[in-house]
Amino acid sequence: MTLPVIGLDELTAIATPDVIFTAVREALIAHADGRTSVPPPMVLEFPDHSGDCHVKAGHVTGTPYFAVKIASTFASVNNGLILVVDATTGAPAAVLADEGMLTAWRTAAAGALITHAMTPPDVDEISVLGTGEQALLQVTWLRKLRPINRVHVWGRRPEAADRLCQAFQDEGITARPDALEAGAPCVITTTAARSPLPLEAFRNAVHITGVGTDMPGKHELPVELFEHALILTDDHAQCLHHGDFGNAVRAGTTDPTADLSVGAVLRDGTSNPHLRSIADLTGVGATDAAVASAVLASRLPSPTGREIDFRP
Amino acid sequence: MTLPVIGLDELTAIATPDVIFTAVREALIAHADGRTSVPPPMVLEFPDHSGDCHVKAGHVTGTPYFAVKIASTFASVNNGLILVVDATTGAPAAVLADEGMLTAWRTAAAGALITHAMTPPDVDEISVLGTGEQALLQVTWLRKLRPINRVHVWGRRPEAADRLCQAFQDEGITARPDALEAGAPCVITTTAARSPLPLEAFRNAVHITGVGTDMPGKHELPVELFEHALILTDDHAQCLHHGDFGNAVRAGTTDPTADLSVGAVLRDGTSNPHLRSIADLTGVGATDAAVASAVLASRLPSPTGREIDFRP
Repeated sequence: MTLPVIGLDELTAIATPDVIFTAVREALIAHADGRTSVPPPMVLEFPDHSGDCHVKAGHVTGTPYFAVKIASTFASVNNGLILVVDATTGAPAAVLADEGMLTAWRTAAAGALITHAMTPPDVDEISVLGTGEQALLQVTWLRKLRPINRVHVWGRRPEAADRLCQAFQDEGITARPDALEAGAPCVITTTAARSPLPLEAFRNAVHITGVGTDMPGKHELPVELFEHALILTDDHAQCLHHGDFGNAVRAGTTDPTADLSVGAVLRDGTSNPHLRSIADLTGVGATDAAVASAVLASRLPSPTGREIDFRP
Repeated sequence: MTLPVIGLDELTAIATPDVIFTAVREALIAHADGRTSVPPPMVLEFPDHSGDCHVKAGHVTGTPYFAVKIASTFASVNNGLILVVDATTGAPAAVLADEGMLTAWRTAAAGALITHAMTPPDVDEISVLGTGEQALLQVTWLRKLRPINRVHVWGRRPEAADRLCQAFQDEGITARPDALEAGAPCVITTTAARSPLPLEAFRNAVHITGVGTDMPGKHELPVELFEHALILTDDHAQCLHHGDFGNAVRAGTTDPTADLSVGAVLRDGTSNPHLRSIADLTGVGATDAAVASAVLASRLPSPTGREIDFRP
């Protein structure tokens, strides 16, 4: 019996944006259709080390593998891996030792897909709130789907905003640190905020994608934004539990059945009239399963010396 | 960066009964003291393949590792592994590719510890209901703690009961298939029952340990047994959610605060007067963490060729 451990170099070669976009899109649509199995995630907290660990699991019904993902963030450093398990026998099939990269990519892909779908085609100007890994990735992955010509960056720490602008420049994207009120028509929030960002940051927004609310206690988007907005959730129950959709519902400004699913909109689009749209993304275990399956399926059939036999 | 994958042969050499008993006992006591972090487990079901997968996570506060365990049962075959993660950095430390064996052992150890603690010292006669792996292990691990001279075996399928009796004989234990009413003073239930076993099976019981209720829908012990019994749970919330303690509470025969914790009894014993005692064991993620940590700590410092470098 062998358990392949697939490391970051090989994953980077296999998991092209096409592979990730296709897998994430199909998983979100399957999730909207009820063709997935996604138990509520687990969270462990390690306050002494500024750490937390999220465990997510998921399966797209009828597909050959399910996935269990361990994603940790300690002192702002991401780590983790994905275990892929045969959905017909329960036998472990592979460890994707991705150090958190596939999670970063599937989060970027999910955000880019729905941001692109909901933002008017002529908009090429983006505001990004937050200066971490997702601040960079949400924009660079969106640029794989449409031209992006100007990026406004806002972060609590000016030096972090400067660093992120430099990273955008290195990718050939014009970016500059901006005050919150310089908001673009499309706003992406990627912070770890535990109280809402200022309302003025969204005053020009026609579409907002939020990816920061990954556990209870997080809160990025002011609840007022949800009034008269078209609300999209990647997972209704999860967003109600710890997304900004749930924060707005608990504040009494939003009806708990007001949301549409991201997957349904990716599949069919939407003709609902609306002032603005908000996509609340909390991360769905089914996308991990789909990405992991796609990676295994794309892998070269002949192992490259990384297979180990641990039961001689 | 390397991720050691420790296979079954090495685990069998390291994880001696002493190591397992000590780790499980300390984890159950820590859990009773509130010195653990154990999120609610996840369950995925695969009805087309008679399969389910349980994901448990746990940490004993202040210890160097936490564990995430994947345990699957497909068509009655157990499989799985335990991922051990550094609790100070979030970095994966090792994969224990135990194929479900450490779970079997920690379940056996937890059962044996509390069965031994609660059964009068002169009792050497055990009834076992169920004929699977735990039916064998609960008794063989208990025999590491006290003499066992007679085992009564009951199972739905006579041929399975005969096979189990043979397995006991191979271990030097006198065992025979018996009718349910031949119950011993100590009864251990290890079935996958979804409706209660007959009450007469417990008519001589002074202590009962149940290990079969690992998910909602399972039900081994008749609710009448819980009246006037001393009730011990390995995890109060989990046993209330899907253990037989919860079944008795929902039937209205038992108060939801009637239980003591297994860990407190292992630490201090109990002087509560009682007609009989019942230990409801649903399996605690902290014991997985403790066993995994103990295994890593006991491991020979020099790797034996199983280390692989997956990021050259």
